[in-house]
Amino acid sequence: MTAFAIGVDLGGTNLRIAAVDTSGKILEKITTGTEVSRGRDRVIDDLCAAVRTLSLKYGPTGQLQGIGVGVPGIIDMRTGMLRESPNLPGWEDYPVRDEIQRRLNSAVILENDANAAALGEKWLGAGADVNDMCMLTLGTGVGGGLVLEGRIWHGMLGMAAEIGHINIEADGPPCGCGSRGCLEQYASAQAVKRMATEAVARGEAPELARAMSGDPEFGAKIIYQLACQGDGPAQKIFDRAGWALGLGLAALINTLNLPMFVIGGGVASAWSAFAPVMFETARSYSYIYRVTAPPEAASQSSRNPDSKREKYTVITQAVLGSDAGLIGAARLPMIAK
Amino acid sequence: MTAFAIGVDLGGTNLRIAAVDTSGKILEKITTGTEVSRGRDRVIDDLCAAVRTLSLKYGPTGQLQGIGVGVPGIIDMRTGMLRESPNLPGWEDYPVRDEIQRRLNSAVILENDANAAALGEKWLGAGADVNDMCMLTLGTGVGGGLVLEGRIWHGMLGMAAEIGHINIEADGPPCGCGSRGCLEQYASAQAVKRMATEAVARGEAPELARAMSGDPEFGAKIIYQLACQGDGPAQKIFDRAGWALGLGLAALINTLNLPMFVIGGGVASAWSAFAPVMFETARSYSYIYRVTAPPEAASQSSRNPDSKREKYTVITQAVLGSDAGLIGAARLPMIAK
Repeated sequence: MTAFAIGVDLGGTNLRIAAVDTSGKILEKITTGTEVSRGRDRVIDDLCAAVRTLSLKYGPTGQLQGIGVGVPGIIDMRTGMLRESPNLPGWEDYPVRDEIQRRLNSAVILENDANAAALGEKWLGAGADVNDMCMLTLGTGVGGGLVLEGRIWHGMLGMAAEIGHINIEADGPPCGCGSRGCLEQYASAQAVKRMATEAVARGEAPELARAMSGDPEFGAKIIYQLACQGDGPAQKIFDRAGWALGLGLAALINTLNLPMFVIGGGVASAWSAFAPVMFETARSYSYIYRVTAPPEAASQSSRNPDSKREKYTVITQAVLGSDAGLIGAARLPMIAK
Repeated sequence: MTAFAIGVDLGGTNLRIAAVDTSGKILEKITTGTEVSRGRDRVIDDLCAAVRTLSLKYGPTGQLQGIGVGVPGIIDMRTGMLRESPNLPGWEDYPVRDEIQRRLNSAVILENDANAAALGEKWLGAGADVNDMCMLTLGTGVGGGLVLEGRIWHGMLGMAAEIGHINIEADGPPCGCGSRGCLEQYASAQAVKRMATEAVARGEAPELARAMSGDPEFGAKIIYQLACQGDGPAQKIFDRAGWALGLGLAALINTLNLPMFVIGGGVASAWSAFAPVMFETARSYSYIYRVTAPPEAASQSSRNPDSKREKYTVITQAVLGSDAGLIGAARLPMIAK
């Protein structure tokens, strides 16, 4: 009889639910559109229906250890409510946790989606060999998750690791959070697209202009392709993203002296375009990184053999892809006290 | 029979050694000039002689729990050596811990001085009611200490909480650490003095020029007095220090969501001059601070009655003054595992 848990990744675009066994194997995964437009009650209905389906299917042969739900936005852990969630408009101050618990008649663990992703990478991904790590998820926005001594660091209200809102430039572009110059405004998919639009508007980027006009799906992926083909203006955008990431990482290294920083999310696929400036900038702004950075080759690999000995500060790509948050959400009930 | 420990605060200017009992009472304090110029061996000799004096005096009536030593600079906890210490020139890569242990024939706990100060404030000062806190010490430089779940957070090598080197402006003034625009270049005593000198050189600050020419001791204290007397250029310097502190605090709040940030060190005495802009800037650059800042009056008081409930993010002055590091150093052996 296999013990398993159910993890939910409730995003602004997709709702994904998986049964994951205690070895980390995904037994089954259900993916639906979130259909945010149909209202939060409908989304919660779909979510609970999928949880019930998996629970009924795997319950007879396994022990359900619990249900973990990752949601985007700032959660108040005391109340189980979202305080701020740009990707789930209208969900602020909606009792997400209580509504799910009421319908399922079962306890659920609510967690910020980037925290869940960090826990997933810690369990089965890039951070499997370390106890302390930080993960940055470069998606629509920039999420962060901190794992200290093997557990998610929540801070006093569960709002910790809002790394996407570390300031990079005091007079930088306005951010949805109400501040300016947040890391998210340089290193998210939206920011990459915005910088491309700005470069096109300034008449500085003919290739980007051409790509933009012909494609309704124009975004970070196409800009990355242009950068790979040697387009200067496209590369400049990723240099800027890398610069901002380097500054943010330097602040984190100086504050926490962690052995590992993991970069995931869709924009992390553009690693080859932003990583060189990111490493260079982290070196420039962190004495600690300068004295603890691994030899050049190791810093590029996804696993570092020396990371176990915690001698180096490793900055590396995530390895679980888009499943990190789902796997981390399922992990939550497995390690709950 | 009282249990006690011996704490040492080894600074660039003063060497202080105290016997502290387990209730936090300072039984006796020995203060000497560090006389760095006479060489590190001489300083260590003086240090060990004072430890022996206190040990012989209080040993017969008390149980010596151990010896803790706070030193300025970045320590490698594995080796007990200083990696970087601008205030103790020539001490880099000197085996401080081993040299003290050898002479005393006894184990000592070596700790960064700002970490020790944070532990002191956690034990008996502003942080006594919380489990998690961060302390910034605004002295010659800017030191930092992180206490998480009641213990100093060291990170992988003991280099954590180098908060004075969080970047404020990517193109800011060069810093002794090799980077630019570090918090230390805005909010330390040296930075305040440098900004005054720059304002005088630009011909923008007649009162500061007058004070500077007549006083070899010209520094942060006199600049603060001028600010208190309404001198605009002097106030502008503390506004800039407050702005940088607010940006640094916002990054820390966004990363760690801690209930308490304690500001100590000599420059903290200029609280009334820098705090207003500091609070305003922290609000501007941290959504989390905006939703968790205590009511106006409470944020100004040195103890917040609600801090026990960990509902608010309290930013407050240290209460132990220059003894924080000494008391924290003595605390180290008391809580060692």
